[in-house]
Formats: sequence, structure tokens, C-alpha cells
Amino acid sequence: MGKVRFDISMSLDGFVAGPNDGPGNGLGDGGEALHEWIVETESFQRHHGRQGGETGVESDLLDEAFEGVGAIVMGRRMFDNAEEPWGDEPPFRVPVFVVTHRGREPLAKQGGTTFHFVTDGVEAALEQAREAAGDGDVAIGGGASVIQQLLAAGAVDEFQVHIAPLFLGSGVRLFADGEMLAGALEQTRVIDSPGATHLKYTVS
Amino acid sequence: MGKVRFDISMSLDGFVAGPNDGPGNGLGDGGEALHEWIVETESFQRHHGRQGGETGVESDLLDEAFEGVGAIVMGRRMFDNAEEPWGDEPPFRVPVFVVTHRGREPLAKQGGTTFHFVTDGVEAALEQAREAAGDGDVAIGGGASVIQQLLAAGAVDEFQVHIAPLFLGSGVRLFADGEMLAGALEQTRVIDSPGATHLKYTVS
Repeated sequence: MGKVRFDISMSLDGFVAGPNDGPGNGLGDGGEALHEWIVETESFQRHHGRQGGETGVESDLLDEAFEGVGAIVMGRRMFDNAEEPWGDEPPFRVPVFVVTHRGREPLAKQGGTTFHFVTDGVEAALEQAREAAGDGDVAIGGGASVIQQLLAAGAVDEFQVHIAPLFLGSGVRLFADGEMLAGALEQTRVIDSPGATHLKYTVS
Repeated sequence: MGKVRFDISMSLDGFVAGPNDGPGNGLGDGGEALHEWIVETESFQRHHGRQGGETGVESDLLDEAFEGVGAIVMGRRMFDNAEEPWGDEPPFRVPVFVVTHRGREPLAKQGGTTFHFVTDGVEAALEQAREAAGDGDVAIGGGASVIQQLLAAGAVDEFQVHIAPLFLGSGVRLFADGEMLAGALEQTRVIDSPGATHLKYTVS
């Protein structure tokens, strides 16, 4: 069985989206700056079906986030915010399990991404993702709420936080007050790149 | 004129103290773990008038935090919480300007540390610290509130956040909601040590 893991970009003050996030403003006010280290990379271009982009450590890090992933779990808010910019061919190319209160039929996109809508909670979505992933890893796509719930449930094996050198001041916190982790953290790798600092942890 | 800077240990979820901090529990519940990377170092022992301890990158980082500092600004809450454990010979050995609403006479301790109590606000305390420091740097000792106020005032030149690999879940946030930075951040150095990750930024 693969690992359960996530990769997410966070501001130094702890936000993964700025205020007022929603469809058309998926990362909230100012939140696009969180992904500045990503968008020019060759990996980002390739995963979005385009050519070009910069190779190097940041491109390699993004490749690593995709590699070996057999299925994805994500929250409904993230799906709603990003469905339009992802377009007809989202970059995932694996089954994606969306945690939602509103059931709907699976939504198959081009390139291998099919969105499945799971109405019985985040742990049920994780279970379905594990099955779909087989020996592959399950990536938690976000947002913060799904990540917090799975951390608290002790379901996460490892994760990487990409700290962008900026303050957002408000928005969606990755680690909100009162959230507790089941297990202890071990820092396993630190990479410093021009656009961010990449901190990797395992949960034991 | 020297720089204005701070060094502070923070949990991965953003806290510089756990809940219920106060005299006798200066770092709050669970907060001592933030300083695990420090307390065994040779530098920590030496600054507290003791011998022994471990040399290496963590000891060097703590030395760097003290080196070149001509004066310190800190908040009253930090002073109240830590006065007793600091004892008769606090590790600072320079003038310390405590921002408080209650005026009192300067308090001279052994080893060169004198606490001055400043009742007209954090920027006035910074001004007095700059004068006392001469060509030396002014270090912001903490806590979070004083750091936030001086960041927002655009008074900070550089800082280092030492991220300890743990979650506290609640307590005192270093970067609270709504705080804004005057200026942009540039990440200038990252050091990975066994007990923490050390992220250095300049404010431009």
C-alpha cells in the first residue's frame, strides 16, 4: 500500500489562500503569489499539456509531488474554486475523490482525470482513494480543511510544506487553532530554492 | 547604525508559546519543546554562565543571535514570564528595554543586563534601544506582539524563524491574523539542523 501525503504552498504567516477565495479567485486575494515558485517550471507546463518552462530544483519538486500518485482526495471548496481554471484536461490524470455534501455523477475529464463525489466524509473518500490508487500513493490535494481532518485522524504518512517568502495577513490557515496531530513529526528534508523553502516531514 | 532584527523559535503551526503561558510557565503548555534545539548547545550553556554543551551548527546559530547585539527590546509579558528563570544573571548582558504600561526604576542585574521600563510605546522603546546600542544591532527579544508591531511599523531589517518540527495546536501565534508587513520579504538563508529548520529573511 502506498503512502498518504500532501504537498502545499504556504505563506510564512501560515496561509494557503488569501481572503475572499472563491470561483474565479481560487487562491484568494494575493494568494497567486504562493505559487510563483511553481508556475514557470517545466513540470508545471508539462502537467498542463504545454511545452517549455524552466528545469531545475523547483521543477523537480513539482514532479515529485505528482510521481507515484495513484489517486487524490480533495475538498469541495477546492474543487469549486479550481474546476474552471483546470479546464478540460486537469493536470492530475488519476481518479480524484471530492468530499462533498452534494452527491453527483462522476465527472470524467480528458487526460485521465475523473472526479468522484463522496458524500460520506473525508475518511470514506480516503478509503476509496486508497482502493483506486492500488500500490500507488494517495495525495491530499487540499484544501486546508481536508488536510487538517486527515492529520487529526492520523491518516497522513508524510507531507511537504513549501514556504513562500511573503505574508498574506489573512485568509485560509493551513494549521488552524485547535487542530491536533495524531503522532509526532520528524523533519526529513529541507530544500532551499530561489522561490520558496521546502520542508518535508514524516509523521510517526 | 546597526540592524533591527529578531530570532525566534516557532512550531510548524505558527506558535511561539503554547496555551496558558505565564510566570512559571513562560513558554506555555508544551512550549518548552520549541527550544529543544537550543538548550543542549554549548552557546546556551555559556550564555547562562555554565560550561559544557554541544558545539555545532545549532550552537553557532545561537551565538549568531547574540553577536553584535547592543540592546534588546521586549514586551512586558515576556519579561514577567521569564524574569524568574533568568535569575540573577540573565543571558543578555546588554541594556534591555521593556515595553510596559507600568513605569518602574531600571533594574540592574549581574553580568551587564539592565532592564529599562518604557511606558510610551514600542517605537519609543526601539528608539531608546537604538541609542543604547550605538553601532550595534537591536534585537527584538519578543514576544509575538512586540514583533508584530515592529514588523507592521516597517522597523525590522531582518529576522530568523527557527521552525521546530512539532504542532502546538494553540497558544501565542507569531504571525497573527490581520498583521501586515511594511515591505517585502526576501529569503536569504536556510539552515537545516537536527532539531529545527532555520529560515532567515530580510525585509526590503
